[in-house]
Amino acid sequence: MENGGEGEARWRFRPSEVLSEASSVSIRTVLNKVMENLEENDPRGVLHLGHGDPSMFPSFRTASAAENAIVSSLRSAKFNCYAPSVGVSMARRAIADHLSEDLPYKLSPEDVFLTSGCTQAIEIVVSVLSRPGANILLPRPGFPFYEARCAFSGLEVRHFNLVPEREWEIDLNMVEALADGNNAAMVVINSCNPCGSVFSYQHLAKVAETAKNLGIVIIADEVYDHLVFGVKPFVPMGAFGQITPILTPGSISKRWGVPGWRLGWIATSDPKHILKETKVVQCIKSFLDISTDPATFVQGAVTAIIKNTNGDFFNKIIEALRKSSELCGERLQEIDCIRCPSKPEGSMFLLVELNLSSLDVIQDDFEFCCKLAKEESVIVLPGTAVGLKNWLRVSFAVELSSLDDALDRLKSFCRRHRKKTH
Amino acid sequence: MENGGEGEARWRFRPSEVLSEASSVSIRTVLNKVMENLEENDPRGVLHLGHGDPSMFPSFRTASAAENAIVSSLRSAKFNCYAPSVGVSMARRAIADHLSEDLPYKLSPEDVFLTSGCTQAIEIVVSVLSRPGANILLPRPGFPFYEARCAFSGLEVRHFNLVPEREWEIDLNMVEALADGNNAAMVVINSCNPCGSVFSYQHLAKVAETAKNLGIVIIADEVYDHLVFGVKPFVPMGAFGQITPILTPGSISKRWGVPGWRLGWIATSDPKHILKETKVVQCIKSFLDISTDPATFVQGAVTAIIKNTNGDFFNKIIEALRKSSELCGERLQEIDCIRCPSKPEGSMFLLVELNLSSLDVIQDDFEFCCKLAKEESVIVLPGTAVGLKNWLRVSFAVELSSLDDALDRLKSFCRRHRKKTH
Ligand SMILES: Cc1ncc(COP(=O)(O)O)c(C=O)c1O
Ligand SMILES: Cc1ncc(COP(=O)(O)O)c(C=O)c1O
Repeated sequence: MENGGEGEARWRFRPSEVLSEASSVSIRTVLNKVMENLEENDPRGVLHLGHGDPSMFPSFRTASAAENAIVSSLRSAKFNCYAPSVGVSMARRAIADHLSEDLPYKLSPEDVFLTSGCTQAIEIVVSVLSRPGANILLPRPGFPFYEARCAFSGLEVRHFNLVPEREWEIDLNMVEALADGNNAAMVVINSCNPCGSVFSYQHLAKVAETAKNLGIVIIADEVYDHLVFGVKPFVPMGAFGQITPILTPGSISKRWGVPGWRLGWIATSDPKHILKETKVVQCIKSFLDISTDPATFVQGAVTAIIKNTNGDFFNKIIEALRKSSELCGERLQEIDCIRCPSKPEGSMFLLVELNLSSLDVIQDDFEFCCKLAKEESVIVLPGTAVGLKNWLRVSFAVELSSLDDALDRLKSFCRRHRKKTH
Repeated sequence: MENGGEGEARWRFRPSEVLSEASSVSIRTVLNKVMENLEENDPRGVLHLGHGDPSMFPSFRTASAAENAIVSSLRSAKFNCYAPSVGVSMARRAIADHLSEDLPYKLSPEDVFLTSGCTQAIEIVVSVLSRPGANILLPRPGFPFYEARCAFSGLEVRHFNLVPEREWEIDLNMVEALADGNNAAMVVINSCNPCGSVFSYQHLAKVAETAKNLGIVIIADEVYDHLVFGVKPFVPMGAFGQITPILTPGSISKRWGVPGWRLGWIATSDPKHILKETKVVQCIKSFLDISTDPATFVQGAVTAIIKNTNGDFFNKIIEALRKSSELCGERLQEIDCIRCPSKPEGSMFLLVELNLSSLDVIQDDFEFCCKLAKEESVIVLPGTAVGLKNWLRVSFAVELSSLDDALDRLKSFCRRHRKKTH
């Protein structure tokens, strides 16, 4: 048992193996690999169409009312303390009221649990539903953080498709075919990252019926909720809580343009109290008891953030997204090797298919993105990261001028790599 | 497979069982149970000696320089964005430099990983070291969040004692007796919650040698680090990184009096690169890739928080703790049924033993605390929560007047419940 003396110490600890596996599927990891290819000396500078974080751009800067709310909360010195593990009750009420505006019934403060961003909300719902033998149904393409958390929790994953030709609607036949009595939940992301799609009321109603038939809970990731700029309005999944219980992870990250503030929530839309009776709610509380919280003074600011941010701010953001999504759609059409099956109506992303057969030497989406980074200092996410090989996810939540510049570079990259027809 | 129609839906999901077990050992859970006994109508108001959070008291209000640092960071609008998963690099550097002041060598920014409080730091170190078959050595009494996270991660726990008669030093013979080749780590909390003790340089050196002989990493929880007011100075475990690798979870929560700001870290003191070679560092990064972060604008403020908080603030806090620890010690001596084996020298707590045989009808520490809450509106933590049955953990990080009042109430409670000798 003795270490040292002459020889080397024999260290008894080893790191968990499940963690490196789980993290290998994250968007961060893939983007970091792509970014390793950047040429430091490119005088043009790097243009990022890789992630969903426009907060650095002046046109997307958050409302000053939101900033002021944080400052007052901090200066009050009432929120330097620990918060209750479920969240500051005033903040729970403010979020419940806010979400209830779109619902056919009113959420109570007890239906809202504060989390450190939607990220922690997802961590919680996945952990809470993880049991030996259970599985979860995830969309393909999707948001790989779900896959990562499932790998970490040992929750088996099964995928259903989103159909590009039907505006990325869920293939509900496929969902039904995955039913095996051990399904715990299905994830519905609306407005959708990575597809840029928005689900219609009719489609969501069908999704709820399907979930009910399977006896599963719907995890309705609505972090992009009202960021819609097409014909379809945003409808929260919670509107169908009478049919099947709904867990809604959300946050202020996207709508207010403040992902760095780390304030999110889980809302339960469960008028029939199924989540209570099955003790899922209790288990969420247990998780919160043994994990970290969002900063208390950010929680203390939520009421004012919601109340004082006026419609003009949201309209400005929506207009910016509409314009840049249109520019993006138009400019991509000019590029031969890229096909965009569906115009985006929400979120900050669109998905395009690569036609590799028209390109020289480029094997797949990952190589495409690495070369693009190297040659043009433009970052785009390989579709592989979201479950679709040889597609690209393009974020258009970028200043218009940068977007235009980036698409110019993408276009010349594709032209340069076009296969010569002899 | 079909739900509904006439009958009730058969819901397929069930909550994770491991979570309710894990959360049952948290201080929050125990305190909540004690607080259920409070009488709402007691006009005297509730006095909390239960938790380690004095941030609400004027004498413990954080430095205005720290508040200002947050406001500037927020107003700059440079930190509304997502942060790198390991943390904003400027903040890593500031913390590395700050911690290096007490070390015989300099930490680099790469040795520091930012976390959402020390809470998330603990979550990470426990998860990273959890492997089938491994176990971890925890102090008794201790901080039950470790037990909770181990239960969640499936990491087996073995306890070694802290010895009240030896100023709560670690029983190193007992540590050695627990060696079985599957030990991964041992946890050392200094300054110590719940004991109020501070370890000497000599004792820490022996601890490091013991850990080296066992081939284990030391998790040195130094969230209370420099909150010392006795004769022994605070010595960071990292000073012994040459002997055995050290993972140091810490935060600004306690020293700056801002647990609600949720800014912590893991520092690695590992001059021999053992944590790198065994891939523990890589695994910490993997964990950070799939979990939430501290608010970016709080990270952005760290450099100024550390630089601009002057010595007067720290001295004021230390003086306040010294005074209140002394008052607490003196007043407790007046109470028959309570014995304080060791004067506190650090942190915000002390531990006292209950002499139940001198009390009427009270079965154990938990009942004692429940009755005390009910009859006197004073909250104290049952020792059971920290692993010592029939002890009490008293927090003295309270305004002097409230502390005095609370100890009056405790005294009259004990007198009232004294066993009548016929
Ligand atoms: C679908 C989806 N869910 C959740 C998140 C995480 O949100 P938050 O920043 O609030 O943690 C993101 C972030 O990109 C997302 O795209
Ligand atoms: C020993 C110990 N470690 C860690 C923590 C958690 O610290 P933080 O508030 O930074 O998450 C506490 C809080 O009470 C503690 O007592």
